[in-house]
Amino acid sequence: MSDLLGVAVLGAGHMGADHVRRLDRVVNGARVAAVADPDAARAREAVAGIEGASVHTETEAALDAPGVAAVLIASPGPAHEEALLAAFARELPVLCEKPMVPDAAGALRVVEAEARLGRRLAQIGFMRRYDAEYRGLKTLLDDGRLGRPLMLHCVHRNVSSPPDFTSAMLIDSSVSHEIDAARWLLGQELTAVSVLRPRPSGGAPAGLLDPQFVVFESEGGALVDVEVFVNCGFGYQVRCEAVCERGSARIGDERGPLVTTAGTAGSEVPQDYLVRFADAYDREVQAWVDATRRGRVTGPSAYDGYAASAVAEAGVTALETGRRVSVDLAPRPDPYPPAGR
Amino acid sequence: MSDLLGVAVLGAGHMGADHVRRLDRVVNGARVAAVADPDAARAREAVAGIEGASVHTETEAALDAPGVAAVLIASPGPAHEEALLAAFARELPVLCEKPMVPDAAGALRVVEAEARLGRRLAQIGFMRRYDAEYRGLKTLLDDGRLGRPLMLHCVHRNVSSPPDFTSAMLIDSSVSHEIDAARWLLGQELTAVSVLRPRPSGGAPAGLLDPQFVVFESEGGALVDVEVFVNCGFGYQVRCEAVCERGSARIGDERGPLVTTAGTAGSEVPQDYLVRFADAYDREVQAWVDATRRGRVTGPSAYDGYAASAVAEAGVTALETGRRVSVDLAPRPDPYPPAGR
Amino acid sequence: MSDLLGVAVLGAGHMGADHVRRLDRVVNGARVAAVADPDAARAREAVAGIEGASVHTETEAALDAPGVAAVLIASPGPAHEEALLAAFARELPVLCEKPMVPDAAGALRVVEAEARLGRRLAQIGFMRRYDAEYRGLKTLLDDGRLGRPLMLHCVHRNVSSPPDFTSAMLIDSSVSHEIDAARWLLGQELTAVSVLRPRPSGGAPAGLLDPQFVVFESEGGALVDVEVFVNCGFGYQVRCEAVCERGSARIGDERGPLVTTAGTAGSEVPQDYLVRFADAYDREVQAWVDATRRGRVTGPSAYDGYAASAVAEAGVTALETGRRVSVDLAPRPDPYPPAGR
Amino acid sequence: MSDLLGVAVLGAGHMGADHVRRLDRVVNGARVAAVADPDAARAREAVAGIEGASVHTETEAALDAPGVAAVLIASPGPAHEEALLAAFARELPVLCEKPMVPDAAGALRVVEAEARLGRRLAQIGFMRRYDAEYRGLKTLLDDGRLGRPLMLHCVHRNVSSPPDFTSAMLIDSSVSHEIDAARWLLGQELTAVSVLRPRPSGGAPAGLLDPQFVVFESEGGALVDVEVFVNCGFGYQVRCEAVCERGSARIGDERGPLVTTAGTAGSEVPQDYLVRFADAYDREVQAWVDATRRGRVTGPSAYDGYAASAVAEAGVTALETGRRVSVDLAPRPDPYPPAGR
Repeated sequence: MSDLLGVAVLGAGHMGADHVRRLDRVVNGARVAAVADPDAARAREAVAGIEGASVHTETEAALDAPGVAAVLIASPGPAHEEALLAAFARELPVLCEKPMVPDAAGALRVVEAEARLGRRLAQIGFMRRYDAEYRGLKTLLDDGRLGRPLMLHCVHRNVSSPPDFTSAMLIDSSVSHEIDAARWLLGQELTAVSVLRPRPSGGAPAGLLDPQFVVFESEGGALVDVEVFVNCGFGYQVRCEAVCERGSARIGDERGPLVTTAGTAGSEVPQDYLVRFADAYDREVQAWVDATRRGRVTGPSAYDGYAASAVAEAGVTALETGRRVSVDLAPRPDPYPPAGR
Repeated sequence: MSDLLGVAVLGAGHMGADHVRRLDRVVNGARVAAVADPDAARAREAVAGIEGASVHTETEAALDAPGVAAVLIASPGPAHEEALLAAFARELPVLCEKPMVPDAAGALRVVEAEARLGRRLAQIGFMRRYDAEYRGLKTLLDDGRLGRPLMLHCVHRNVSSPPDFTSAMLIDSSVSHEIDAARWLLGQELTAVSVLRPRPSGGAPAGLLDPQFVVFESEGGALVDVEVFVNCGFGYQVRCEAVCERGSARIGDERGPLVTTAGTAGSEVPQDYLVRFADAYDREVQAWVDATRRGRVTGPSAYDGYAASAVAEAGVTALETGRRVSVDLAPRPDPYPPAGR
Repeated sequence: MSDLLGVAVLGAGHMGADHVRRLDRVVNGARVAAVADPDAARAREAVAGIEGASVHTETEAALDAPGVAAVLIASPGPAHEEALLAAFARELPVLCEKPMVPDAAGALRVVEAEARLGRRLAQIGFMRRYDAEYRGLKTLLDDGRLGRPLMLHCVHRNVSSPPDFTSAMLIDSSVSHEIDAARWLLGQELTAVSVLRPRPSGGAPAGLLDPQFVVFESEGGALVDVEVFVNCGFGYQVRCEAVCERGSARIGDERGPLVTTAGTAGSEVPQDYLVRFADAYDREVQAWVDATRRGRVTGPSAYDGYAASAVAEAGVTALETGRRVSVDLAPRPDPYPPAGR
Repeated sequence: MSDLLGVAVLGAGHMGADHVRRLDRVVNGARVAAVADPDAARAREAVAGIEGASVHTETEAALDAPGVAAVLIASPGPAHEEALLAAFARELPVLCEKPMVPDAAGALRVVEAEARLGRRLAQIGFMRRYDAEYRGLKTLLDDGRLGRPLMLHCVHRNVSSPPDFTSAMLIDSSVSHEIDAARWLLGQELTAVSVLRPRPSGGAPAGLLDPQFVVFESEGGALVDVEVFVNCGFGYQVRCEAVCERGSARIGDERGPLVTTAGTAGSEVPQDYLVRFADAYDREVQAWVDATRRGRVTGPSAYDGYAASAVAEAGVTALETGRRVSVDLAPRPDPYPPAGR
């Protein structure tokens, strides 16, 4: 245990700083070896009190810093492609936050670069795969007792959207989680997408098409419908019901104490994804550290990251045109497992 | 109370016989005065032990029988138009099982005939409006605390479909309940419909497109999605979640004792709509008897029956063509309240 | 159906007036033939608009009024013994609200009087036996799949107690429902009782021992614990969990729409027993009318009424002495079924 | 982070080996420095593959091994007193599995020894205080919105008891968890206890009084009732409902996917406490490591361990005598926080 995995964290914003804290204080077997952020003060603040962590403003400098044996990318999405290629060039294992690369073309370049190495180096940060409820659902679907999945009914609600959130981002930022979860749960690629647009909520900023109702079709003939509503006002809710040939299974109903007071019996709804998925982030990073220390790469692959971007791109086109749009995926190179593994 | 309402029941099949029993033993203030069925033996059997109920093979004879002051139509759908017109000719109040008239053109003729009378005589048997859960949801939506409804997510599952059930019947027989419920809950007409067809379940009869996923649009810009799955095998489930601007409300989760045994904690799922909606049928007929004895007509109107048929017809076209189909409703004549009343 | 059962209702207070309305407008096969109340104005008001119902200030006059074939006793408890004996003298079938007779000695006199008739005439108003949830639980316990019941955990909460409610009334008025329910569910007599007194809630009137925790022992060695809390402030809740050798079953969790808004997902808690048990009262009176018209007496017997009074009396002694108190029941005469039938 | 906390683990049985795994692979900031077990082979097996962990058969040798800076005691209960005193003699921080010391007299000696040091060194392994549900309940009770707690209704069920489990162990082994949880949730000492004994389940071994129903009284006048049923056969269930002056809160209902299949809608019941409380154990040990590295001692204290033993001892007397038994606690020495902190 003395050989802790030295990690370079790229990006010291909200998510990056949280991962620094997680590596330093929560997960077992790792240490923060370097942090890079264009804003050096922000990087310094993130590592305050952490012994042996160097601070950088350039990605490459951080990757080359002493003690760095792995990389966690938490910089803004547009910076990911370059960072991933730099990590690949050094054969460093990577955990890259989603979206891997926002546009499908760039994402495909990453896949091709990794495929040229002949082995996987990157795990993509689709943290729902590490959530206890999602894992329970996946286990149920895989053991076959409910039969083949026919439909997934999904709900994705946020209290309110960040400033400058666009109608396209409901799909390529929010629904991208459901895109990955559906591919993983079904073990199938998504092949087409339609977007329905109810009249926007009065609670949404002017001009934002919120909520939206997105319907995906899978290669095996399953449907995946997603209500995405990012200004619902009442809570952060993520639900999924898998309807199968011999039964259904639903996750995402509220938990926590059942409180009865003043004429209502109910449970609190979390207000934030960092609350709802706190354990999933911890498990995700722990699993990455554990695998990396054993010389393995597991979890969502770069091809999963590419597929999410490609399906989301088709979804945005469907939103803009009002039409059903087919998804054309590049073939999956050798080192990558099929959807659902 | 000595002046019990004498009711002629048309049709002595499964549903007709059940209504005879209900009028005779459950509801207050009514009595069975006559029963008509082409199969006289079946009619006789339905009224066995009921004093003062005459038996007929012809609709007109039953309507003209002594003591008949109101009509309950429970014959097969294709016989409804003629029966309704005969009741209208005698100015008899009617409770007519759904579908009012299976085809929109015939349904419109009934509306026009009743409109010519200048007053309503018919209540249509959309019993969900009398279910305690649906009424609770309607009250919630109408009191405005949750804001404007944006989407209804509906589920309609049967254990298995009757013999000779066709792909179109998933819409015009099963989903017709959701069509009426959506119009009533939203207080809006449905204006377009699309049908998505997942790969059929292995549990469905060969050739039957089961399940289907139907999406309606309303005049106010709300979406209504319906999973209809009539060979799900595991139970009879009817659920509805209304997603509004400031909250959501869901009905249809299982009730009844929470039983924990052998590693599972759960509740029984009803296997049959007569179990799930037993109280709703009782309340529906009681409400009809009560109103009729006071000289009033309340509940779902003939126009509601027409609208359900017209929307369902558009749905069947959408299923067959794979396209989004607009609904063209004839204008609502004077005596009829708007959707949702 | 022309021979409606003519019922004399004794007592035109809150509960009596509600039963008059129920007989007149809800249940099938009965009519209100007479109403008696010492306050004639109150009796007249209760039957306003009901044809053929005579009004009386004396019990005997009402029982002898034309058309009276059965009696529903809803007068205050202390008047029940005389009314029951008067009904027995006329061989009139009776539905008597609980408590049958408040004191065990008087209740035993009623049992003995009815036993001398050699047949049952009285049904006692323990309406929970007609509640859908309780019936579901009873069915589960009787079918044996969960094994022998070992414990019943019961909760009985009211928003607030009426004026002049005493500490003893938590047991002999409120818990008397659980006493009957436990005897019925277990099919066993209760043989001893202890009462624990937590420090009273600040929400209870000064001097009232509220809540209390009552523990009964049954002849078969089962325990029945009851939290009774009549000034809980937050709702009317009645729950029961039966813990058996191979499983447990719980009733009484909140139902109705699951509403999510403003950070909470929950259901409304009823505020009143007339809301929670509305259907049970309807079914109880309908069952009584149906049985009476067929010449039968079913439901809770006078011996059940006596046993409830005797156990409650022991409970009050246990409350006052702080000791475990044994219950001494007089033997069950011939016409009466054992507990649980 | 290079200065990992070196921990000596005493005991390499089921629980000890699990803690070794946890320190090695799950928690952050610690390493296994030594393991002691009278069975050297078992100790060696527990540390297989862990670099730098020495193996011992004697407690003292393990405490004195190089790199040991803290102790985790997971040996059988009777060995705890000696181990705690040895750790105190070396001023080593300790995490000691429950029961701290099985008998109250021995537990008091530990308290007195630690009190003589003038500061706390020991945290006792009441892991429920680290469970997310219990913490949610504690937060609710402490924030005061529900008012003063009046009653706790607790359930503690196991699938089956280990061999040689005695009737007394239902209290001093199983219910000891509820004793600590109640003291912590209420912030009050327990002052008396009664035990009721329903007729044993047919599923319990012959002679074992199972289930039992235990009622505690607190210094503030609250009641704590506990159903303990260690051969229930159907699952591992731990529930607690706190009934307060203005509301109630319940934890322990089943979670996980809601699965509907074959006529039942329900969730899986865990079969084992290591499944139900897996996260709680992880959080407990992480909190201990975090505090220890910062030179602090938090969590349940030796006095909490003593109080649990003293209350359990009274409970066993109550079980054996059938009487209400008072609890006499030695005064709480200075370094210890009151119950509930």
